[in-house]
Amino acid sequence: MKLIDGNKTAAELKEQIKAEVALMDRKPFLVAVLVGNDGASETYVGHKEKACREVGFRSEVLRFADDITQDELLAEIKRLNDSPAVDGFIVQLPLPKHISEQSVIEAIDPKKDVDGFHPENVGRMILGLPAYISATPYGIITLLKAYNIETAGKSCAVVGRSNIVGRPMANLLSSKDFDCTVTICHSRTHNLKEICASSDIIIAALGRAEFVTADMVKEGAVVIDVGITRVESDKTKSGWKLLGDVKFDEVAPKCSYITPVPGGVGPMTIVSLMYNTLLAAKGEIYK
Amino acid sequence: MKLIDGNKTAAELKEQIKAEVALMDRKPFLVAVLVGNDGASETYVGHKEKACREVGFRSEVLRFADDITQDELLAEIKRLNDSPAVDGFIVQLPLPKHISEQSVIEAIDPKKDVDGFHPENVGRMILGLPAYISATPYGIITLLKAYNIETAGKSCAVVGRSNIVGRPMANLLSSKDFDCTVTICHSRTHNLKEICASSDIIIAALGRAEFVTADMVKEGAVVIDVGITRVESDKTKSGWKLLGDVKFDEVAPKCSYITPVPGGVGPMTIVSLMYNTLLAAKGEIYK
Repeated sequence: MKLIDGNKTAAELKEQIKAEVALMDRKPFLVAVLVGNDGASETYVGHKEKACREVGFRSEVLRFADDITQDELLAEIKRLNDSPAVDGFIVQLPLPKHISEQSVIEAIDPKKDVDGFHPENVGRMILGLPAYISATPYGIITLLKAYNIETAGKSCAVVGRSNIVGRPMANLLSSKDFDCTVTICHSRTHNLKEICASSDIIIAALGRAEFVTADMVKEGAVVIDVGITRVESDKTKSGWKLLGDVKFDEVAPKCSYITPVPGGVGPMTIVSLMYNTLLAAKGEIYK
Repeated sequence: MKLIDGNKTAAELKEQIKAEVALMDRKPFLVAVLVGNDGASETYVGHKEKACREVGFRSEVLRFADDITQDELLAEIKRLNDSPAVDGFIVQLPLPKHISEQSVIEAIDPKKDVDGFHPENVGRMILGLPAYISATPYGIITLLKAYNIETAGKSCAVVGRSNIVGRPMANLLSSKDFDCTVTICHSRTHNLKEICASSDIIIAALGRAEFVTADMVKEGAVVIDVGITRVESDKTKSGWKLLGDVKFDEVAPKCSYITPVPGGVGPMTIVSLMYNTLLAAKGEIYK
């Protein structure tokens, strides 16, 4: 069994980006839009700012009170779309309830949509065109490549069909770039256990702690665990711990490769955002 | 075994559209752009014009010589994008080799892209947002609904991963609207025969005549045949006949439902284009 070390791969990718940025006259510029005072959002944006500093990007956080109107926010987005200085920007979700997240996502110029959430980027990815691939799917395919995991002709169960993980993973892995035979499983799937147990690769992205058990995994499988559930724990100082969608202790011994939680897919997401921002600055997606 | 009659369902949908158009003050207006003198393209565009007349749409064919430059064609597309009179338009493919089809598709305003080929419409469909769904996938889901075919919890093999059929079908059928457990199969799939033979529904869209044989289909399966291959025949006056991707004679007796070729999916495509044009005229996709 080999552990897929997301921290290591993320650090390597970060170093590559940093080396490339060092040679650029004009540094990539990422802006994060933060509405309100959500604690988790503050933390995420803080991590993103730190990552920008580490790779040599310029970054800025635009903060707005949680009573900003949708029209005011859309006007700010338009300013960012039109600003030649800004290579890419993200609007940190969730937004206050009086603002339509979908309207905000669709207002972002696809050319600056480094989160890859705009329908045009999703469509481009699906069609096999150059696209900003969103952070989690991009992180997963980068890990598969970093560990030289064979995918062509392999069977793959994608468990979960969310727009941000399951669905893009099913489309990416079934494309000619990966050539997996993908089965998309979800809450209405009858024989989920059998499908997983016969699959060479399992992408667990349903968001239920320790759902995938040893009897659902075949000997030698590759298991990518995208779940993060915070549960109480009396064994940690903080009083809580993170669990993945995979019952790691019993599944890991059967795997050829497995991602741990934490330290697997998670660390890849922020560096994936940095990578998209680099692509934006270089104009490599929309020429 | 029940035959899925595409001609009948198409005629019914056409009558519904016609009835709705009859009540509209302003008739939907569809424009077709035709470059060069490709015989098949002429025929398709002719069928589309005829369908427009039948449902009460206005229609127009803009013809250009095959030496039109890409820039000139893009300028025509811009004119159509900007014309308030035009609800939707299509550019008949294929285009001459000196013109990038992808550039042309991306130049069409997604709001008028009634073919549903623009990445933004593909992305919207994938994300479950209102979208123009392209003609063949829309035709197939309309047939499934017209025949009240149960899809929830069913296993479905989509054979073929093309951008125009296989991939959209896999995404649509695995969505909450249909709740199938979909396996996307393609040229690199190892155990295609077993996957098909264990599936409740088979979408055959690989483009190889009579590829799906009786041993690949389980008793009671639903089989949708998207293939159309023209082969020589000494039994027809024309000297040729159309074959689907399914070996109909031996597969049909095992099926609960099956589409014939011709007369199954084919007749649905033009009426699907009419339906998208109606949606465009009503402003129902992009509000």
